[in-house]
This record gives sequence, structure tokens and C-alpha cells, in this order.
Amino acid sequence: MMKSIMLFGEMLLRLTPSNHQLFIQASQLNMVYGGSEANIAVALSNWGEKTSYATCVPDNNIGLAAIMQLRQFGVNTDYVIQQGHKMGLYFVEEGHSIRPTEVTYDRQNSAFVDAVPNDYQLEEMLGQAKWLHVSGISLGVSKQARETTMALVKLARQKGIKVSFDFNYRAKLWSIEEAREAFIEILPYVNVCFGSYMDVLTLRQEKRKVKSFDEKIELLKELQKEYNFDQIFTTEREILDDNVQNLSCAVITATEHHKLGPVRVNVLDRIGTGDSFVAGALFGLANSYSLQETLDFALSSFALKHTIVGDFQVASKEAVQGFDLNGEKVIIKR
Amino acid sequence: MMKSIMLFGEMLLRLTPSNHQLFIQASQLNMVYGGSEANIAVALSNWGEKTSYATCVPDNNIGLAAIMQLRQFGVNTDYVIQQGHKMGLYFVEEGHSIRPTEVTYDRQNSAFVDAVPNDYQLEEMLGQAKWLHVSGISLGVSKQARETTMALVKLARQKGIKVSFDFNYRAKLWSIEEAREAFIEILPYVNVCFGSYMDVLTLRQEKRKVKSFDEKIELLKELQKEYNFDQIFTTEREILDDNVQNLSCAVITATEHHKLGPVRVNVLDRIGTGDSFVAGALFGLANSYSLQETLDFALSSFALKHTIVGDFQVASKEAVQGFDLNGEKVIIKR
Amino acid sequence: MMKSIMLFGEMLLRLTPSNHQLFIQASQLNMVYGGSEANIAVALSNWGEKTSYATCVPDNNIGLAAIMQLRQFGVNTDYVIQQGHKMGLYFVEEGHSIRPTEVTYDRQNSAFVDAVPNDYQLEEMLGQAKWLHVSGISLGVSKQARETTMALVKLARQKGIKVSFDFNYRAKLWSIEEAREAFIEILPYVNVCFGSYMDVLTLRQEKRKVKSFDEKIELLKELQKEYNFDQIFTTEREILDDNVQNLSCAVITATEHHKLGPVRVNVLDRIGTGDSFVAGALFGLANSYSLQETLDFALSSFALKHTIVGDFQVASKEAVQGFDLNGEKVIIKR
Amino acid sequence: MMKSIMLFGEMLLRLTPSNHQLFIQASQLNMVYGGSEANIAVALSNWGEKTSYATCVPDNNIGLAAIMQLRQFGVNTDYVIQQGHKMGLYFVEEGHSIRPTEVTYDRQNSAFVDAVPNDYQLEEMLGQAKWLHVSGISLGVSKQARETTMALVKLARQKGIKVSFDFNYRAKLWSIEEAREAFIEILPYVNVCFGSYMDVLTLRQEKRKVKSFDEKIELLKELQKEYNFDQIFTTEREILDDNVQNLSCAVITATEHHKLGPVRVNVLDRIGTGDSFVAGALFGLANSYSLQETLDFALSSFALKHTIVGDFQVASKEAVQGFDLNGEKVIIKR
Amino acid sequence: MMKSIMLFGEMLLRLTPSNHQLFIQASQLNMVYGGSEANIAVALSNWGEKTSYATCVPDNNIGLAAIMQLRQFGVNTDYVIQQGHKMGLYFVEEGHSIRPTEVTYDRQNSAFVDAVPNDYQLEEMLGQAKWLHVSGISLGVSKQARETTMALVKLARQKGIKVSFDFNYRAKLWSIEEAREAFIEILPYVNVCFGSYMDVLTLRQEKRKVKSFDEKIELLKELQKEYNFDQIFTTEREILDDNVQNLSCAVITATEHHKLGPVRVNVLDRIGTGDSFVAGALFGLANSYSLQETLDFALSSFALKHTIVGDFQVASKEAVQGFDLNGEKVIIKR
Amino acid sequence: MMKSIMLFGEMLLRLTPSNHQLFIQASQLNMVYGGSEANIAVALSNWGEKTSYATCVPDNNIGLAAIMQLRQFGVNTDYVIQQGHKMGLYFVEEGHSIRPTEVTYDRQNSAFVDAVPNDYQLEEMLGQAKWLHVSGISLGVSKQARETTMALVKLARQKGIKVSFDFNYRAKLWSIEEAREAFIEILPYVNVCFGSYMDVLTLRQEKRKVKSFDEKIELLKELQKEYNFDQIFTTEREILDDNVQNLSCAVITATEHHKLGPVRVNVLDRIGTGDSFVAGALFGLANSYSLQETLDFALSSFALKHTIVGDFQVASKEAVQGFDLNGEKVIIKR
Ligand SMILES: [Ca+2]
Ligand SMILES: [Ca+2]
Ligand SMILES: [Ca+2]
Ligand SMILES: [Ca+2]
Ligand SMILES: [Ca+2]
Ligand SMILES: [Ca+2]
Ligand SMILES: [Ca+2]
Ligand SMILES: [Ca+2]
Ligand SMILES: [Ca+2]
Ligand SMILES: [Ca+2]
Ligand SMILES: [Ca+2]
Ligand SMILES: [Ca+2]
Ligand code: NI
Ligand code: NI
Ligand code: NI
Ligand code: NI
Ligand code: NI
Ligand code: NI
Ligand code: NI
Ligand code: NI
Ligand code: NI
Ligand code: NI
Ligand code: NI
Ligand code: NI
Ligand code: NI
Ligand code: NI
Ligand code: NI
Ligand code: NI
Ligand code: NI
Ligand code: NI
Repeated sequence: MMKSIMLFGEMLLRLTPSNHQLFIQASQLNMVYGGSEANIAVALSNWGEKTSYATCVPDNNIGLAAIMQLRQFGVNTDYVIQQGHKMGLYFVEEGHSIRPTEVTYDRQNSAFVDAVPNDYQLEEMLGQAKWLHVSGISLGVSKQARETTMALVKLARQKGIKVSFDFNYRAKLWSIEEAREAFIEILPYVNVCFGSYMDVLTLRQEKRKVKSFDEKIELLKELQKEYNFDQIFTTEREILDDNVQNLSCAVITATEHHKLGPVRVNVLDRIGTGDSFVAGALFGLANSYSLQETLDFALSSFALKHTIVGDFQVASKEAVQGFDLNGEKVIIKR
Repeated sequence: MMKSIMLFGEMLLRLTPSNHQLFIQASQLNMVYGGSEANIAVALSNWGEKTSYATCVPDNNIGLAAIMQLRQFGVNTDYVIQQGHKMGLYFVEEGHSIRPTEVTYDRQNSAFVDAVPNDYQLEEMLGQAKWLHVSGISLGVSKQARETTMALVKLARQKGIKVSFDFNYRAKLWSIEEAREAFIEILPYVNVCFGSYMDVLTLRQEKRKVKSFDEKIELLKELQKEYNFDQIFTTEREILDDNVQNLSCAVITATEHHKLGPVRVNVLDRIGTGDSFVAGALFGLANSYSLQETLDFALSSFALKHTIVGDFQVASKEAVQGFDLNGEKVIIKR
Repeated sequence: MMKSIMLFGEMLLRLTPSNHQLFIQASQLNMVYGGSEANIAVALSNWGEKTSYATCVPDNNIGLAAIMQLRQFGVNTDYVIQQGHKMGLYFVEEGHSIRPTEVTYDRQNSAFVDAVPNDYQLEEMLGQAKWLHVSGISLGVSKQARETTMALVKLARQKGIKVSFDFNYRAKLWSIEEAREAFIEILPYVNVCFGSYMDVLTLRQEKRKVKSFDEKIELLKELQKEYNFDQIFTTEREILDDNVQNLSCAVITATEHHKLGPVRVNVLDRIGTGDSFVAGALFGLANSYSLQETLDFALSSFALKHTIVGDFQVASKEAVQGFDLNGEKVIIKR
Repeated sequence: MMKSIMLFGEMLLRLTPSNHQLFIQASQLNMVYGGSEANIAVALSNWGEKTSYATCVPDNNIGLAAIMQLRQFGVNTDYVIQQGHKMGLYFVEEGHSIRPTEVTYDRQNSAFVDAVPNDYQLEEMLGQAKWLHVSGISLGVSKQARETTMALVKLARQKGIKVSFDFNYRAKLWSIEEAREAFIEILPYVNVCFGSYMDVLTLRQEKRKVKSFDEKIELLKELQKEYNFDQIFTTEREILDDNVQNLSCAVITATEHHKLGPVRVNVLDRIGTGDSFVAGALFGLANSYSLQETLDFALSSFALKHTIVGDFQVASKEAVQGFDLNGEKVIIKR
Repeated sequence: MMKSIMLFGEMLLRLTPSNHQLFIQASQLNMVYGGSEANIAVALSNWGEKTSYATCVPDNNIGLAAIMQLRQFGVNTDYVIQQGHKMGLYFVEEGHSIRPTEVTYDRQNSAFVDAVPNDYQLEEMLGQAKWLHVSGISLGVSKQARETTMALVKLARQKGIKVSFDFNYRAKLWSIEEAREAFIEILPYVNVCFGSYMDVLTLRQEKRKVKSFDEKIELLKELQKEYNFDQIFTTEREILDDNVQNLSCAVITATEHHKLGPVRVNVLDRIGTGDSFVAGALFGLANSYSLQETLDFALSSFALKHTIVGDFQVASKEAVQGFDLNGEKVIIKR
Repeated sequence: MMKSIMLFGEMLLRLTPSNHQLFIQASQLNMVYGGSEANIAVALSNWGEKTSYATCVPDNNIGLAAIMQLRQFGVNTDYVIQQGHKMGLYFVEEGHSIRPTEVTYDRQNSAFVDAVPNDYQLEEMLGQAKWLHVSGISLGVSKQARETTMALVKLARQKGIKVSFDFNYRAKLWSIEEAREAFIEILPYVNVCFGSYMDVLTLRQEKRKVKSFDEKIELLKELQKEYNFDQIFTTEREILDDNVQNLSCAVITATEHHKLGPVRVNVLDRIGTGDSFVAGALFGLANSYSLQETLDFALSSFALKHTIVGDFQVASKEAVQGFDLNGEKVIIKR
């Protein structure tokens, strides 16, 4: 039987007014589902990778709707538990041009946040897994979620399952100090890391601006050395005018590093782009792509997600592979 | 300066899929605001009554949107406090014909639920009040909300302000036993009561079906005697086929009682109809209508609300007064 | 060359909130076009009858949109003039069950209302006409519109063109007294009349309720005699509960009269139903149907329009003819 | 490993204007997916029954969207093949009251219609199956689809797998004569049959109206005898005014028969109701319910589907079981 | 008691098709409310400034909806009168890139246009005012509105209330000649002026292009000298490609002048941006900001409004203050 | 009687999810109608040119809706035939920035595709025509459509009617080899040609990139010579970042050639832009514009269509003429 990539984290319902309205202007909300690890699970499964996702959703019609969203993409939901009453939510006021997008969280005391390790079938979850991916968000939302995450990570390493980790620091969730303490605990168990130079500074309790991408890569090289990661991946975003951005990325191993980019893109939906980069990188690793091919697939996924609404990267494998980073622009296929 | 009717309770954001969809079918949600006491405040203010409403909403863009909904109807929001992070929500799957409407609450740990008496300006809230209205929901959502409600009610009676109370029992919020204990504490402070024979049975710890409206009125007469309410109001709903209902009501005082109805109505939106009855009755009392006129206005408001979408009774005073309970049907005014 | 039915009157843009909302609840409006004579023109043309419609719309993008609505149904718009700045509008709050639909007009000083007879090509308009239809609304909206209507009617009779007229009394437009004076002026020129017993009472300056349809028909017989109409047609509407109505109709000539109905219908959109009856009757007359067949087609059109949204009767000729007044109910055709 | 119910047939995309509009009035279409056997698969799977569905969808983004709809309900789609270019479509003009719903098919030359038996993995499809369900539609859409259906049915019987069959006659697809010939071929292989007295008359080449439900049941008893079905199920629909219908059903075996109903329901969406009855009956049989319990579950599912939009029966097992055929009406659960 | 800023002018209902459609393509219209002075009142009140707005709306459900829009932002509407039948409207076809936005007015004979000075309570309106703001639009829509405006302005100066004025020349409303005569009458009463070099040329009866911002400022300096305004404010707009604009502004007093900008912005909604600049400047003056701080707040408000749909500037005070004219770009806050 | 421009080709219904959604994300589709020759007919007729369009639509409510779309713009539809069952459809996933728009056709076996020459009234179609326009799409969709097109073209030349032709090569419809054979057959009958250098390479069986516009024009000059076209028109599109494009065009005759452009435009809807260029050129020729004026009108139409949603060029003649290729930017007209 084929082994699968297991992901664990919170699934959220995103509620967004249409047409860049503020909440005080709206009378309807668009519903999409997301959450960093769910986003990655959907992309991987949609590309044909065997994928399982574990989370806790409330035992009601809202939780059921969340599960159905995952299942339509083929994600295995056997380890999703249904208990409690509250779905994690977030409200988004989509910005435009100089006006930033504003996120309002309503995820405290959610079913996931309140679930304890014993609520899950930790052993079974990893029984068919070849890989485990988690993120810093699960360390930050509650003591219980952090315990579950750490239990999973440790168990995975015992079983010889590779562990990947995305820092995913969210300033509205916890302080840098709280985060640092949790990061230090988890990093020794991590094989593949996704992060930014900001995370290195957090770990070092430094606060300064770093401008050049090369200098940022240097900081990440030091992190790689400290924890001996198989790989550490990072993205770089140069914000031009009018929602136009230049996107780049890099990967660092003990022996080499590669940069790729930039790709210029006009943003339709920024949310979930980081996750689509992670998904692309994991897909490359899972399919034994070369590091260069992995970066190419990850950057293509990252760039294309900026042009897709919703948290999920729904571009097909063919669309991601067919995207030519340096190629001629095709505007219509008919 | 004119004195106002003060209302206290939780405001909620209602999220509803269009066209009777279940949550698992929906990709958009309609937003309306409600909450029993807010609904009454809006109706009273819209009819020209000076009205103030106190609640606690989160200190974010969701809470602000809720306040703006009240202000547009002229409700005084000076005593609305903004703190905490969570707006009380409820999700509604609108039923149709034989399929009941399904409410899923997400109101635990909301800003209102967690607020304590000291967070409010209780003295100031009643400074310009001639009347205070509260409901059983505020007794049930949390210990703190119950304390605030009781403090307000006691303070009102000290100041000679009339107190009205609506039992508003919600099975998804608390058990009958918990509710009974709270009802027994508050009823001695109540001048005007809104309830049903079910509430009398709850107080008596009885469980039985009562079929005839007259028999139900008898039970309420006994309650009136026990607590010596100025008035106790009640509504009666006979459900015919196809969302068609016969609506009636009654009022009981120490010396008299009146019944009115039925009015036959096809339901567009059931939610908030009970509140529109309360609003109608309070409006009659506040304007020194006779008991018969009060019942007539309250039943007209009750019936018309069934044909209006959203929790708020937005029919104008002229529309309510102009509704002829026994008159010819007018289908278009042009 | 085939001769056409010419219609003259004001075209209006109807703006309606969705889902029975009041105006104060709405943030979007649905746009449909209407106007009594335009509605009839559209139905006749859609059924294959050669039809021309004359009106005046503003010389801007709003007026152009109105013309395009007519053209899509094949109505000849060569005699529609474009001048002035204001389109006649009406806002509709759709009622439900016991709550009546509320119309708010914004048609004063519209392009049509301000146009004078010389603005139109009266001679040319009737050059290819075999029939002229006008209604009481054009007599009521302005002195100029009344002058144009009277000029057309007189010219038609001079040319031997048949004239049909629908009283169409609107209480929000003018008083009964003003209307009566205008009706008395036009009736001598009318060949085929559409009206109700209320119009007879208006002419007689009487005010009383008439309950039975037979008694109403008696009043209309007297009107037929007085003006020697070829035919006078009338409809009868019994309002049952819940938007359910029983629809009947009758025709009266110098020598005979026929009743048809009732058909029971649940109303989706009441507006324009009277016009769809007129269209049905004119279609029967234009195609030399027997009086019985004419009534059958007119009542079928009348009934079906109640189930169609918008002012226009868009049911096909086959749908109207195929409707079996007494037949078995078909709920789906597949 | 648990065995599954296998279903085979065409999946369709339904396109419907909003608010009962005709196609000529519409500028947007709602998308839902359906098809008789897909509808049954979704209901069964949603109720927790292991279910697999085989069909052929085009190898493009439209076909993919169809598959995802099934997967979200947990239906196994391993045997769905993707080839060809055309999705079967149908356009629906939703009727209202006396106006019937009108279906316009666009399914000729679809991927499913053109697929031949060899395109499918017939052996594998039945490898894990305990039951096979097919319908008359697959016999009617093309010679190839009929061949595939017959091959499947024969193979199932060879393997000892029970076969159920729904006549599902569609007048817009084929003539009664063509259908009769195909029905005669398949019936000997059928264990459980779903049909109406009309199908019996078709087989007998008779044409007459049968009014009473008991008389209809007599006709079906004779069919049961002829083919010795384990069971034959039927539904009965009395159309009252205003989209209100009385729904009944019956089951007939060699030794007994039962009737149940009527349930009175106001229709929101008629399409897919027959399939929800079949799903309910199959669920009862699969779970060893008594015949009475099976009828009860099937009629509850049938009735509730009338109040749900879309082709799929999405009511939960709890909602279907909790529906009390004779009970008190509950209008809101909160 | 705190004194308020009083604004007077017409409120309008804006009707706009979605997604940049032309009117001939649309079947729905979005409703937002606006009007130069209403826009300013809403922004000031939303930022916490005590604000009152006087206008005349029709005495119907449309006028009521307009008032409610103001009230939700906390604007005092005690001096809004309700009489007449017509709401001022404007239809907008939103342009895109090289296609300009097209406004079609329907405001002739509106309730505001027809109201005369005696319809208002001029004395009371200014009773609690510390400031009065009016604009050139009110001088242009009718003789009556101009009379009311002039009466208010003169009364304000008598009472020692500061007067601000925005030229707001609209070519579709009146000719340059008509406007010039009215401007000359009002300017002697103005303390704070908002205008452009075009207005100076109008006053001088000159017609020429001025390219450089500095040259434009020179012209405004001369106007400041002529009328001895406390301040004159102006904005400058450089239109780059693709809806991208560079926004600047300046203020001129007897002794100094300051320029600020440019800020580059991609436009979501251009309408109401000038008003949001005025609101920002008045807010700075009312709160004793320095001229530099005032310009900064006004330009931030001006720029942010370009990214907000609708006529109203609904960005919070915190969002305006937090906008860093030269700062790093923040694209999401989470 | 004025002669008309006759166009022949397939009309299609375009179905598009909102807001750049992929098909798997959508639950609603926007409906617009198109087809290369229909698009040109609508533009010409909307600008006041007498225009007739012949096609074949299915004999159902979908085909009728298509005809009505044409009629609203004044296009003569007397030669549209209604037979068969299938409307040609195409589904569009609107791209954004680096993600290309994806077209999925569903037009095989459509009513148009299956119609044979004898189904049309070829003689009558050209009876009142002064011009005939066809495109390569009709040569590619079926043998029958190609036969009809060739019959029409030959008949036109016999009658002395000018023939224009647009290559319109679509890679999803046929191979370059198939297309080449058909092009070689039709070109001798063509007076005015619309094409690109790619078409020249196709005819020559060459495959290479040509970068400069001048070099492309050289290739087209050779084509002009070979077939002695009155004119050959071409467009040039430079794709900048972010949906921004530079648009140019050229015309070549036996004796001269002209280039015009570029115009920079931000694209709202790319589909139908080529047709709007053809319409502009034909309009210039039909109205005896100079070649320079013709190019100017054609390029203005081409550029403006990029800012209009839907396949139809609905910009008015005034808007196209008023567009100043080199002028100052106007962003709002009010
Ligand atoms: Ca709103
Ligand atoms: Ca969106
Ligand atoms: Ca959905
Ligand atoms: Ca609504
Ligand atoms: Ca609203
Ligand atoms: Ca519907
Ligand atoms: Ca339309
Ligand atoms: Ca519509
Ligand atoms: Ca439009
Ligand atoms: Ca908008
Ligand atoms: Ca669009
Ligand atoms: Ca969806
Ligand atoms: Ni946007
Ligand atoms: Ni945008
Ligand atoms: Ni916010
Ligand atoms: Ni409904
Ligand atoms: Ni309904
Ligand atoms: Ni539910
Ligand atoms: Ni409705
Ligand atoms: Ni309704
Ligand atoms: Ni109204
Ligand atoms: Ni409906
Ligand atoms: Ni309906
Ligand atoms: Ni139809
Ligand atoms: Ni836009
Ligand atoms: Ni745009
Ligand atoms: Ni325009
Ligand atoms: Ni877009
Ligand atoms: Ni976009
Ligand atoms: Ni695609």
C-alpha cells in the first residue's frame, strides 16, 4: 500500500465581503476554507499525491462542511475528529493597492484549540505515513495543540518518518517571545524547514531590517547549520506598485543553495500563497525531483496561487508544470 | 429631557445561506444582525420611541458593524461597550415546509458572555431610563451576564423604573433545571412579563402537553397571581400546512384578560417574531394605549414580522397601525 | 405589407430589492422594464403579432437600454423618440402574504411626461397601423400626454383604425375626479374597452362595494350600452390566503356575454398581469378567434403571467395555448 | 473489507436561472450536479453506506468538477473514467404554481453516451460490490450505454450480486416502444424494482388512466409475480394546489404489501425526489430494516428532498430518521 | 455641550451596475448613497467629530433609507427635512483603464432642488454649530437651493461661525458663466476654501491649460490674496496608465504654503475622493492640527478613499493616521 | 431600400464563473453570447449600420434567447434558422496576470455544425446584401458549415457583393494542415482580408517566430499581392506585465500601407477584441472613411473592447469616435 503525507493543523472558515468592501459596508460574505496545513494537503492531493490530514472540527453542520471541502480534493479525512461546538473562523477585509488586507480572527476556544492529544489517534495517524508536516500556528493557538503537535513530531521521528515544519509566525496570535520558546523546542525534530530570515532573528532575539536577499540567505544558512536540516526553503517578496510583486525563492542544504526568480505577478488573492510554496516543495521532494526542479515547481505554484481566489491552491499539476518562469506570455488558450 | 426605554442583552450576527440551502451546499452567507433585546430596541426606536440599548461587542470591525446597525434605526448606543475579541454568531439553515430551520450557535466566550458587571456603567445606563427590558437569554449565557442582568434589574426597581422580562427559553443554551433556578430569582423584580404556559410548567417542574389556548391562559393567570405582574403577555401559534400559521395572543392582568386573533400568515422569516410582539406590547404600554389597543398593535407587529426578512422588525409604525386584522386583503399599493 | 398593432404610453424602469426586502434593507436592486402599453406590445410581438410601440425615452444610456428591451422581443421601435433627461422610474417593495406590495413612483417630469404632441410623428405612427391601444395612465400623467393620446385616438378613428382602451386607474397618479373627466372625453372614440365595475362607478360618481361578479358584469353591460363598444373585457380576482388567488374574466358585447374561470394560482409577480390579459384579448381579436377562444387565451395569459417575474408576459404562444384551464396539473416536462 | 453498493449511470450538470426566470430573462445560471444514479450514490454515501459510482465524464475541467462533487460526499470514484469532450447538460426553467418546470436536454454525444463497454473496467467495478443499481435512462441514451448496462447486470447476477433497477422513463429521451423493448430485456435480471403502474402499462402496450392508488398497486403486484422480484417499490403523488403535494408509497413482495402516507409537502425543488426515494429504500434493505421501517425511511427521504435545492438528497441520516411522518410540526430548532 | 460641524447639501442615491458593465448590459444595480457634503459629514462623524447634516429628502421609503445611511455613522440628522416625492439619483457606468466612467444624473426636480429656505430651520441648524461647510453644487442645482445656501452662509458669518466652501464645479449641472456669477457672490463669506486652478480661471474668465503644480499654486495664491481666506486647499492628480494615479495636495495661507505628495495609488472607486480630502482637512483644522499635519491627514484620507467602494470615506481614523505616506508597504495584517 | 451587411457564422453561449474562479470553485455561471460574426454584426448594427446575420440555433428556449440578444441591438435575424437541439457553448475560466484564460468548447454536433447548405435560404440571404463577411471558424467546425460558407462566398461574388474574410485560426478546433487546405480554397473569393503573419506562415507551411511588426507587415504585403485583396488588415499585440498590453494595427493595399498605435490598455475582457477590430474596419469601409480614418476607428474600437465585459463590442459610435488615441486621459464624465 502506498504511504501518504500526513498533515496536522487547524482548518478555518474564511468569511470575506465581496469587491473589497469593509465589513461595515457588507451584507453578504463569501465562504472559503483554509488553514495552512489544509491548504498544503489540498494542493498535494490535487496533484495526485496520497495525502491525509488530521484536525478537529466541531460536531455540527459547519464542521461537516469543512470535511467535505477536503474530501472533494481526495484528501483522506479518516483522522479528522468531530467534537466540540466552535469552528475556527477568520474574517477578511480585502485591501486594494495602498490599503492592506485586514484579518480579524475568531478562533479562540475552537474545537481544534481545545482538543487534547488523547482526543486524536496519534499512533494510527502515523501508521501509513511517510512524511509529517506541521506548522508554528499549531504551537501558538493553545497549550493543548502544542502538546499534540510535539507528541506527533516526536512519534514521527521515532518511526523514522520525515518531519517538515513551517514557522508561519502570526503576530495576532502570540508574541515573539512565546513563539521563540516553542520554536526552540520543535526545531531539533525537524528535517525540512520553511522559514524566513525574520524567524532566525526571532530565535536570536535580534531586531533589525535586512534588505538584500543574499544577506537573508546567509542568515538561513546559519540556521541550517545549527539544526542540520536536510533543506531549508524560503521565499522573497518585493512589493512593487499596485499589487504587483516580484516573487523569488531559495533552498539551502548542508552543501549547496539555489535561488530562483523573480517572477512578476499581479495579485488576486495573497492568502495561502506561502502554503502553496510549501506544497510545491514537498511535492518535489516526495517525487524525487532535483533541488532545481523542486524550486521551479515550488516557485511556479507560489506564483500561480497569487492569481487564484481562496486559500486553496487549485491549479492542476499540469498548470504548475506548464508554467514557464521565463517564457512568453500566453493570455488565452482556445 | 424625554426618558427612554433601556434594553440590555447580547447582539448577534446571523449568517444564513441563500435560498434555503444547507450549510454544506452554500458558498455565500447573508449577514443580518439580531438578538432578542436588540430586535426590540430597533422596532421601538423605528416607531419613534426614545430607546437605548446596552451590550458588549468586540473591539474590532465586526463589533463596529453591529453598532452601526443599531444607530441607523436611531437607537442610542452610548452604553454599548467595546472590548474582547469575539462577536456572538449564529448560523441558520432555513427550513422549508416540513423541514425545520436549524440554528447552530457560536456564541460561547463572546465579548458579551465574558463581560462582568463592572465593565458596564450600570448607574448611568439607568440614569435617563423610564423602563428596563431584559430576557432569560442573558440569564443563561454566562454567570457574569446573569449577574449584570440581576444587578440592573435590582437597581431599576430601586430607582422606580419599570422592569419587563421575556422568558425566551432556548433549549440549546441551558437545561430546564438551570433556567428554572434563574427564573425564580428574577421574577420578583418583574413588572411586565412575556412568557408561555411552557414557562409556567418549567417553574412548577411539570411536563405535559396543553392543547387549548384557554387552558394555557389559565396557567398564566396563576403565574400572574403568584408574582402580581402588572401584565403578562403571551402568544399562540397554530401551525397549518406549508409554512402557514394562525397567530393569536393574550394579555392577563390582576383584573382582566383579553385574547386576540387568529391572523393567518404565510411565513417568510420566523426569527425575531416573538421580539416584535414584545416590542409592540411595550410600545402600547409606553404610549398609554388601552390593553385592547396594545394587543392589537402587538399582534399586528407580530404578524407582519413573519413577512419581513432578518431579525429586525422594520415595518413602520404606519404599516403596523394600518394593518387591519380583520380587513380586506390589499395586495398592491400603487 | 402586413399592418401592425400600434401602442402608445410610457415605458418605466422598475427597481426592486431581492427577496421581499424593504428599501431600507436593500443594497442591490433588480432592474426590469415595464409600462402598461409596453407590456402589451412585448407580449403581442413575442406571440408573432406585428407590433409597434411609440413612447418618449430620455436621450441617454438609460433610455437606450429601455429601447433595447423592446427590440429583443421584435417590437418595432421606429416611433420611439429620444429627448429629455429623465426616465420614468418606479421602486417596488415586494410584499409577502399579509404584507402588501408598495410602489413608489418617480415619474414626474420624465421625458414622456414632458413630451408634447408635436414631438411625435403622429401621422406616420398610424400609417401602417390596423389597431391603436392606449390606456388611462397616459391621460393622467400630464396635460401633454393626454393631448397626445387624444390626438392619436381621434386620428385613428378618422383613418378607420380600431381603438382599444384600458382604464388602468392608479390612485397614486390622480384623483377619481380628474380621471372621470378624462375618461368621459375619450370613451366616445373607443371600440374595445378594458375596465372594471369600479370604473363604471367612477363615471357615475358612485362609491359602493359590489361583491358578486355577476352584479359587476351587469354594471359593465350598462357601460357597453352607453358607449356601444364592440367589446368590453373585465377580470375578477378573488384573493384567498397566502398569495393564492382565483382568477376569472368576462367579455360583454351588444348581444352576448361570457364568463370564464376561475383559475387558481399562487402569485410570483402580480405586476403586469392586467396587461397580459389585455394582450391576450387583443391577440384573440387580431387573429379572429371566437369570443370564447379569445377569453380562453386571455385568461390563460393572465393566469400564467402571475408565475413569471418582471412586468413583461414572456410566456410563449405555445405555452399560453397549451395551458389547460381545467386540465390535469403537469409539474415537470422532461 | 466492507463491500459496497455500486451504481452506474450518467452524471449531468444542471444549469438553472435564479428566481423562476425563463431562459430569455436570465443572465446567470446556478450550477448543480445530478443524474439519477449519482443522486442515489450521494445520498447513500452521505448516510454512511459504502458506495461506489461508475460513469464517464469528459477529460477536462468540467468533468473534473463533476467528480469532485461526488468525492465530497465520500462516494468512491475510482471507476469513473475521463475521456471525450462533452459533459451531459440539462437546462431547467423552474416553473411556479400552474406553470410547469421545463427541462431542455443537451446530452447527446456526451462522453457517457459515446462510451462503449470496453472503456470501463467491468470486472473490477463489481469486484468489491454487494449490490448493483442501474436505471432505464442508461438503456435509453445510446446503444453503447445500453450494452454496458446489460453487461454489468448480467455479470452481477453471475457473481451473485443483487441488482436493483428503476424504470425512470423520460419522454424527451425515447419513445415508449423503444423503452418497452429494452425493459423486457433487462427485467429478468432484476431483484429489486422501482416503478409505477405506467411502466406496467408500457410493458403491456396499454394506454389508460388509473386513478386509485390501490388499483395501481394491483397492477404492480402482477408485475412482481411475472418477474418474481424480491420487492417492487412505488411512489404516489397527489398534486394539490400551489406546489403542495401529498406523497405516498408502497412496497410489494411475493407475500405481502404495505402502503405508507400521505405526507403533505410544499415543494422547493422537485428534481431528484424519486432518486431520494430509491436511495432510502436501498438504505433500508442494505441495513436489514424491516419492510415497514424501509418504507418509513424511504418516504421520509422522499418527502424531505422536496424541500432541498439541487438534485442531491443532502439531508443527514439523523434528519431522515428524525422526521416524524405523523408527528407535531417543528419549525425551528434553537 | 460640544459644538458641531454643520454641513448642508443634497444627498443622492447612486445606482451602479456590477463589474464595469454598461447600463445596456446590466440587470442589477448596486445602491450606495452620496453627495459631496454628506460624504464629508460621514467621514467626520466616523472619525469622532460631532457632525450635523441638513438636507431635504422625499417623504417616502427612499428618503428614509438615505437618512438611515447617515445615522449609522453617527451623523446628527435632526435637521434633515422630509417632503416632496423625488430622491436625487445618479447612474454610474464604471469605466476601466482607457474607458472613462460615465455619470447620468436624474436629480432635476428632486425634493432638495425644490425646497425653499423657509422649509428649513435655518436658525436652529446653526444654533449648536461651530463650523459650516457648503459647496458649489448647491449653488448650481436650483435658484432655491442657492438662496438657502446663501442665507445659511450669511447667517453663519453673523454668528461668528467659520464657513468653508468647495467649488465642486460639475459641467453637467451648469455652465461656467452661471457658476462664475454664483461663486463671486459667495466667496466674500468664505473662511476656508477648497478649489483648483480651474476655478481661478473660471473667475477670471480665462481658458488655458496649466501644466505644473507650482504654477497652479501660484494662481491659487492670488485667489487667497483676493479673498483673504484663512486657508485655501487644493489637490493635484497625475493620471498614469491603467487607473494608476499620483496624488498630491497643497495648502495656502496668507503667510505660507505647503505641498505634499505624491502618493501613488491604483483606483478602485474614484467617486467621493475629493470630498474625503475636504473631510481630512476639516478634521485637521477642527482638531488644531498643524498645517503640515492637516495636509498629511487630508492626503492620507484622499489616497485611501481611492481604494474604497462607494461615495463614503469609511476608513477609520486609525487607518488614516496609520497610513504612512512614505513608508514600507504592508499588504496583509494578520 | 438600403442594402445591408450580411454576416454568417456560429453563435455561441459563453458560460463564465465570476471573479476569475476556476470551474471547480464555481457555483454560478455568467451568461453572455458571442461568436466572431455575431460580435461583428452587433457592433455594426449598434453603430447604425444596416446589418443582417444568418446562423442556425436550436429550436428551443436556448436558441430563442440567442436570437433575442441579436435583436436587441437591431440586427436583422430573418435569416436565422431554428432547428436541431444543441446550442454551441463554450466555458471560460478567466485567467489573471500570469495565469492564462482557459477555453473549453462544447460545440461539436451543435445545430449550426450539423446544418447543411440546403437548410438556409442562400439566395434570399444575399438578396439585400451589399457585403458578406465570413470567418475561418465556419470552415473548421464541420464539412457542412464549410460547404455553406463556400456556397455563400461564391454566390456573393457572382452577384457582385464584396466578400471579407477573417482567418480566425483556433488551435482547439482543427490542425494547421486542415486549415491550410480550406484557406487556399476560399482566398481567391476574398476582397478584404483580416489576418496575421501567422496565417501567411500557415499558408506557406513555414514555422518560425517573427518579432518585429514591420517584418510581419512585409509578410502580409506578399499575401496581398498573391491574392490581390482590396485591403488586408492586421493587429499587433505587445503583452506587458499585469494584463497591460500595447495595441497596434496596420492596413495594406496594392499601393499603400499604414500603421497605427500603440494604445496602452489594461484588459478587462480579452474575448471578442479581434472581432471589434474587424467591425471597426468594416464600418470605416462601409462609410467611405479614408484608410487612415478607418484604421483610427478600428483601433479605437479594438482598444475600447478590452475594457468591456462580454463578447459584444457595445461601446457606442460616439464613444469610439470620441476616443482620442493620443489625447489626455479623462477618468470621469460628470
Ligand atoms: Ca451595508
Ligand atoms: Ca473573491
Ligand atoms: Ca457549494
Ligand atoms: Ca435577503
Ligand atoms: Ca443594507
Ligand atoms: Ca431557487
Ligand atoms: Ca438579460
Ligand atoms: Ca433577470
Ligand atoms: Ca449596463
Ligand atoms: Ca462595487
Ligand atoms: Ca466578469
Ligand atoms: Ca464550490
Ligand atoms: Ni478586486
Ligand atoms: Ni481590485
Ligand atoms: Ni479590520
Ligand atoms: Ni424562500
Ligand atoms: Ni420557500
Ligand atoms: Ni443542520
Ligand atoms: Ni419570493
Ligand atoms: Ni415568498
Ligand atoms: Ni414603502
Ligand atoms: Ni421560489
Ligand atoms: Ni416561488
Ligand atoms: Ni421552456
Ligand atoms: Ni473592477
Ligand atoms: Ni477592473
Ligand atoms: Ni453613458
Ligand atoms: Ni477581475
Ligand atoms: Ni483581476
Ligand atoms: Ni481549465
